[in-house]
Amino acid sequence: MNSVLNFADWAKQHQVRIEDVLDEVLPHTESTPQKLHSAMRYSVMGGGKRVRALLCYAAAELCKTNEALTDAAAAAVELIHAYSLVHDDMPCMDNDDLRRGKPSCHKQYDDATALLVGDALQTLAFEVLSTPELCANANQQISMLNLLARASGTSGMAGGQAIDLDSVGKTLDREALETMHQLKTGALIQAAAMMGAAGGNITQINAVQAYAENIGLAFQVIDDILDTEADTATLGKTAGKDADRSKPTYVSILGLQAAKDFADLLFKQALQVLEPFGIEARRLRELATFITQRSF
Amino acid sequence: MNSVLNFADWAKQHQVRIEDVLDEVLPHTESTPQKLHSAMRYSVMGGGKRVRALLCYAAAELCKTNEALTDAAAAAVELIHAYSLVHDDMPCMDNDDLRRGKPSCHKQYDDATALLVGDALQTLAFEVLSTPELCANANQQISMLNLLARASGTSGMAGGQAIDLDSVGKTLDREALETMHQLKTGALIQAAAMMGAAGGNITQINAVQAYAENIGLAFQVIDDILDTEADTATLGKTAGKDADRSKPTYVSILGLQAAKDFADLLFKQALQVLEPFGIEARRLRELATFITQRSF
Repeated sequence: MNSVLNFADWAKQHQVRIEDVLDEVLPHTESTPQKLHSAMRYSVMGGGKRVRALLCYAAAELCKTNEALTDAAAAAVELIHAYSLVHDDMPCMDNDDLRRGKPSCHKQYDDATALLVGDALQTLAFEVLSTPELCANANQQISMLNLLARASGTSGMAGGQAIDLDSVGKTLDREALETMHQLKTGALIQAAAMMGAAGGNITQINAVQAYAENIGLAFQVIDDILDTEADTATLGKTAGKDADRSKPTYVSILGLQAAKDFADLLFKQALQVLEPFGIEARRLRELATFITQRSF
Repeated sequence: MNSVLNFADWAKQHQVRIEDVLDEVLPHTESTPQKLHSAMRYSVMGGGKRVRALLCYAAAELCKTNEALTDAAAAAVELIHAYSLVHDDMPCMDNDDLRRGKPSCHKQYDDATALLVGDALQTLAFEVLSTPELCANANQQISMLNLLARASGTSGMAGGQAIDLDSVGKTLDREALETMHQLKTGALIQAAAMMGAAGGNITQINAVQAYAENIGLAFQVIDDILDTEADTATLGKTAGKDADRSKPTYVSILGLQAAKDFADLLFKQALQVLEPFGIEARRLRELATFITQRSF
């Protein structure tokens, strides 16, 4: 049935689905501590395009991962992403007042609440994905948990964030920049696809990994291009902030046109590794287009 | 062999052991990002009496949980505890400059680093405990991960922290105070024992749970008594700070003597549930004494 939907409808269907799953797993606003629960929902619900969840669902479709496990993995990766945004926006980090077109969590609530929100969202990601009896094969679930943890920690997202902090005002060469982005953004994007694949057939797993590496990096290159070109209203977050703070970007190192060419190369490489899989990889292919041609 | 050791030697043996496990799982200071890795080690190593790890080992001894799984669980619970201390000490929370007799993480490094240290330590806890092929029964490992996550999130530690924040300057009744402490401190102490038990025989699990509930609460009551009586040098952290900030404590609500009597009652209840298990529960019994008679 999914195969007859066009991409926009498939994406919409799965954006609604992940929103429902997140709504179900987030604690209710009526239960104590209410302010924390309210701030967690404020920071997670109705936000973004859910690219990571979509990658998880698309890879699960290719690898035939069971639905309950895929829902949990997709929710977990979105919760990790949401936690990272809340903490990144805090005054001691990027000090950003705007997120997804709304006041960021620490502006809407306060710094202490934002700290706890990020902490609790991270925990919730691992709680959701460690739900007992989610699938018949607990080893697959352990693999997914470990993929998520490795992508989020110091050899992934948190590590990239630390390198990013250290790089303000410094000149990074292209290799150092790629390492930083690979950890900060790429690792979690990759993990999203790999988690979707990890609960199913292992024959496609190397291809999904190669696809995810290219798409993860492309995502960041596009981010830098958008940060240069777009205005704040379109992005829903403060535009041009990296350049303002002398943070190195792909655009600042390569120049605008070369950055665009590089994103195009990564896009083509991502498609190439999916060639053997025909129609079953169509959602991953469509997502590659969606990510590299986005304006958000 | 363990059964012939006196408690002090058993505790010392397992304190050395958890220190070795933590040293092994923490990222090396030489690898990038070095500052983050260095700050993580600063915040974890050589700190505290490792009460949570000892509870985990003691329960594992009673329930015959396998060693690799117990090491991972003990390390994970200590990493969660360490992350919570780093974030609690930050300026937007308790703003505490002293921890375990040393400058707290944000004083030794900076706020942004402390934020990332806490984040990365939490992730590392789940990474360590989700190591693939740690034990033959992946379902037991999933149970442990879920116990840890539930004890750390909004229905556990983070929830208690949020209630604590909201309670500054307010008058809590005893029931509300118990709920707050049960979440903030008790839940993780309980989880430590329950995780040690979850990888083994399930016949003792209800007793371990009842034991852990009493000990978790006793731990906090003693904390309040020590906060009133001890000086900063003995505690290795700032003494009297809760009273200073008009935070309700067991001493402020019950009075000093009644708080001591209450801790004694909890201690006796903890011992009572272990009665059926004879010598195999001796380490849990000795830990109950250690915790309720401590001066740290």
